[in-house]
Amino acid sequence: MLVTLRDIPADAEIASHQLLLRGGFVRRVTTGIYAYMPLMWKVLQKITSIIQEEMDAKGCLQTLLPQLQPSELWKETGRWQGYTAGEGIMFHLKDRQERELGLGPTHEEVITNIAGEILRSYKQLPVNLYQIQTKFRDEIRPRFGLMRSREFIMKDGYSFHTNEANLKSTYLDMDNAYKRIFMRCGLQTVAVDADSGAIGGAASQEFMVTAESGEDMILISTDKKYSANQEKAISEPIKAKPLAKGEPSLIETPKQTSIDSLCSIQGFDSSQIVKVLLLVAHLENGENQPLLISIRGDQELNEIKLINVFTQKTGKNIIAINSITNDQLSSQGLTQIPFGYIGPDLNDSFLNGAKTWNNKFLRFADLTAATLESFVCGANKEGKHLNFMTWKHLGGLPEKVDIRKAKAGDSCIHDTNQKLEERRGIEVGHIFQLGRKYSKALNATFTNQSGIEEPFWMGCYGIGVSRLAQAAVEQNHDESGIIWPITIAPFEVIVVVANNKESIQVELGEKIYSELIANGIDTLLDDRAERAGVKFKDADLIGIPWRIVVGRDADSGKVELVQRSDRTAELMNHASAIQKLSKEIQQAKDLSISQPL
Amino acid sequence: MLVTLRDIPADAEIASHQLLLRGGFVRRVTTGIYAYMPLMWKVLQKITSIIQEEMDAKGCLQTLLPQLQPSELWKETGRWQGYTAGEGIMFHLKDRQERELGLGPTHEEVITNIAGEILRSYKQLPVNLYQIQTKFRDEIRPRFGLMRSREFIMKDGYSFHTNEANLKSTYLDMDNAYKRIFMRCGLQTVAVDADSGAIGGAASQEFMVTAESGEDMILISTDKKYSANQEKAISEPIKAKPLAKGEPSLIETPKQTSIDSLCSIQGFDSSQIVKVLLLVAHLENGENQPLLISIRGDQELNEIKLINVFTQKTGKNIIAINSITNDQLSSQGLTQIPFGYIGPDLNDSFLNGAKTWNNKFLRFADLTAATLESFVCGANKEGKHLNFMTWKHLGGLPEKVDIRKAKAGDSCIHDTNQKLEERRGIEVGHIFQLGRKYSKALNATFTNQSGIEEPFWMGCYGIGVSRLAQAAVEQNHDESGIIWPITIAPFEVIVVVANNKESIQVELGEKIYSELIANGIDTLLDDRAERAGVKFKDADLIGIPWRIVVGRDADSGKVELVQRSDRTAELMNHASAIQKLSKEIQQAKDLSISQPL
Repeated sequence: MLVTLRDIPADAEIASHQLLLRGGFVRRVTTGIYAYMPLMWKVLQKITSIIQEEMDAKGCLQTLLPQLQPSELWKETGRWQGYTAGEGIMFHLKDRQERELGLGPTHEEVITNIAGEILRSYKQLPVNLYQIQTKFRDEIRPRFGLMRSREFIMKDGYSFHTNEANLKSTYLDMDNAYKRIFMRCGLQTVAVDADSGAIGGAASQEFMVTAESGEDMILISTDKKYSANQEKAISEPIKAKPLAKGEPSLIETPKQTSIDSLCSIQGFDSSQIVKVLLLVAHLENGENQPLLISIRGDQELNEIKLINVFTQKTGKNIIAINSITNDQLSSQGLTQIPFGYIGPDLNDSFLNGAKTWNNKFLRFADLTAATLESFVCGANKEGKHLNFMTWKHLGGLPEKVDIRKAKAGDSCIHDTNQKLEERRGIEVGHIFQLGRKYSKALNATFTNQSGIEEPFWMGCYGIGVSRLAQAAVEQNHDESGIIWPITIAPFEVIVVVANNKESIQVELGEKIYSELIANGIDTLLDDRAERAGVKFKDADLIGIPWRIVVGRDADSGKVELVQRSDRTAELMNHASAIQKLSKEIQQAKDLSISQPL
Repeated sequence: MLVTLRDIPADAEIASHQLLLRGGFVRRVTTGIYAYMPLMWKVLQKITSIIQEEMDAKGCLQTLLPQLQPSELWKETGRWQGYTAGEGIMFHLKDRQERELGLGPTHEEVITNIAGEILRSYKQLPVNLYQIQTKFRDEIRPRFGLMRSREFIMKDGYSFHTNEANLKSTYLDMDNAYKRIFMRCGLQTVAVDADSGAIGGAASQEFMVTAESGEDMILISTDKKYSANQEKAISEPIKAKPLAKGEPSLIETPKQTSIDSLCSIQGFDSSQIVKVLLLVAHLENGENQPLLISIRGDQELNEIKLINVFTQKTGKNIIAINSITNDQLSSQGLTQIPFGYIGPDLNDSFLNGAKTWNNKFLRFADLTAATLESFVCGANKEGKHLNFMTWKHLGGLPEKVDIRKAKAGDSCIHDTNQKLEERRGIEVGHIFQLGRKYSKALNATFTNQSGIEEPFWMGCYGIGVSRLAQAAVEQNHDESGIIWPITIAPFEVIVVVANNKESIQVELGEKIYSELIANGIDTLLDDRAERAGVKFKDADLIGIPWRIVVGRDADSGKVELVQRSDRTAELMNHASAIQKLSKEIQQAKDLSISQPL
């Protein structure tokens, strides 16, 4: 059942999405929701088998956990609100008894609760449980096909330990297993330091398939020793250009509300300016907390770092964060603020009488701003800035934190001679040292060697299985179609009968097909009543690694053997072709299994 | 990770549910929702593989369809309302764009829509697509563990054909494949005629695992030639006892509101009475239609048959059906009715002024009542019945229909010398000839050989995979635990080291374990620091078909080989034990594959 499309589907923006649709691998059912058709299902099965083999090799046990999860468990960990309100991504519903259920985007709550019930003693530990199943996210912007879909397949695993050292050892094991999995799937990946996001925990690492269309920005040091997701990356910023000495003074800066215009008209360098951002954080507990952020004029705020700093300093969780606008000030019943001219010392009295906001700013200064000895900043008056300012003049320094986006060109922390470079990546895996966050929240404990109850140490380990399949296409295609890595290709070989009205061709094609199958080679026979050209185009599009063409030379038992990746073609006896394929395919598989990391 | 429970779980009513919980196969997460733990996952995988092999053998192609389904598709087939309102069992939710989505209990809409897009020509047909995945039902009464759970695993398949004959041929193919699947899983099943329910279509057949705890009542003829679900079964009722001749007359029957009391006091036989049931049907279109049903006093109403008759006669779909009570009459603003004394001629004027009900009864008479020449019935007055009545005296016969429950003791239609017998069963499979119901509704067409567009003929085929696993336990257990059929057992052999402090025992146990694994036998090693008795009990409970006990005779290389089913035990050299097991297990597997149906 080979059904391909000629035209490029209108709503598919990236090559892999277009090719999977055109090749009949997936069908869109509704926004961000796809059906996996037979060819795709075979790809997913091959990825699944590789994952299972590598997990089994590490002694992990497979389970299958529910997709419908009771809200009670998520309330115990305090995640229900964050995952369902505001920008929360958990689909949720009420059953006929009006009980709230969520559709699992992840399974920490469910598995930790079960572990707490069945793993009673240190003697039973460590345990590493995993599953491969459908997960759900009500994405704000579903896009790029399986890359950011609302229903997708994931492998997620959870490990339980008596102590942190044991967790770290399993974490390294999983790092190793994950690298083997991606390698066996034929992918080029980079492991990067990552932010732990809504999952939480101490340390985490992402595995990125490098691709220009990747949604994630990765920063890698020139010597490759450091790599991180931009959300997490740290660096030395370039040095600020010192401001000439002078006394604090008010300067007229009419209509110079942007850093660019201020610099070009006044002759400042953007590194000499302290930029102020006003934000409001909507918290899980219902509070709305205004924030005043100071950062050097040439730097950008990293919102993820800000959210982490906020939670760390206040112990409160942010559901959403927004810029403050004059419209919002009006609806809070507040007076307008001269945006573009705000200084770090904007008085809290501005917030007096706010309807739903707290009436005091939480103030943070990024290190780049905090370390400036003399700088330019807004004067909190329309058309006016202050020159030669110091933090002392402003009444003191707010809390110093790192909330800056690292960027290409910055120096590295591990070696300031190294610079960061940019790459784009597709996240296909993420491993976390969760620590005891979930086991404490759910009171999931074991009895240690001294007979005392204590919470498990936990790790968690995810692979986006359906996303990985599409990432493989994004990394392996050309203008004619997909070039599947042989280990995850829907078929290893396609036998194309050029003219299905020639019985010699049909018979030889069927004979070759049967022999390949008998040799354990996953083979597709294309003997449709189509022109040879159509069949060649389809074979190129669906990306089967090897093609045997049974055409005019069938009379003399000869066939053409074509390799999809480089299009090398060779006319040879059909028996030799089968022999060559059997050898090549076995070698490719063995290599993928045995290759050192 | 072997975690078993000593006590019988309080909320588990049937043996298989208790055993799966006690054996650590499943954990309850919330009402009707279970986690499949590692042992159970292995059982499910083995069942899945058997299904895949049999489906592949019939040329079916595997897919994976979305669980979240857009309401639009269900509205096109007219099933959204029935599946979500009233007693509808589809979980449903709104996404962040307020679009309605259902959690698939079945996939006719999704697959038919896709088929309509990709299968354009008769040349591409027939096609048979299937999937194995999690499905959802918001059950009114979830119970018996995996038997009636709210989240469960199903295999569902859908076939597409150019004509009815081709559909019927595939339907027979599937019947055959299903019988092979259940046989290979080691189950005793009966195929029965079934009602097609909410799925619809012309013909359908269920596969029942016979078990006393089964929720379904099956009726089987003495000669085994006829078997049907009671919902669907037809029969000849036993003959009515003729009433002595007489003139119609009113009789005083104070406080004789039940058939029993009326018969015992007045000396009637229950087959001489016409019983009247008043019901109200809540329709998909919002109407509430009162029903007046006449049936012979010794017979029971089959509600499923009534619903089917109603839809057939009116073209309208019923969401729910309830008995009429005096409370309901009050809230409709109607006068009370003398229940227990209602006759088939109850006047429609009773319904005048009803608030939300239609004001005319729809009247049906079951054949058992319709064929009585003279009978007793209610006089529509408190404490009074009518004797020697005829339909003519009542003003005529309502529509005659078969809405009676067939029951044990009834004669069979195919041979009135055969009687029906009762059995209880667990439905594990159901196949349907859908016809063109869905393809017409969704306008899913192909171009036939004459170049004309016409809707597909369709079949659909389901297996309850998780339910099947539990049904296997219900059919195969004893007082000590589960006795898994070897083809779906989580492990084929368990090697129990009686005393894990004896190094000779441990070494021999590990050696035997490794050799069995090397021989391709799925083996579990129990070398826990527990007493031998505990380990034997656990092995019995989790039901591994073969047990090798490495105990005191390990010094002389001898082990005990125990078969779980009949507890036969044999002391033998360990090498012979391995040899015997390899042979027995291979034979059992081969037999399950090759055995004729």
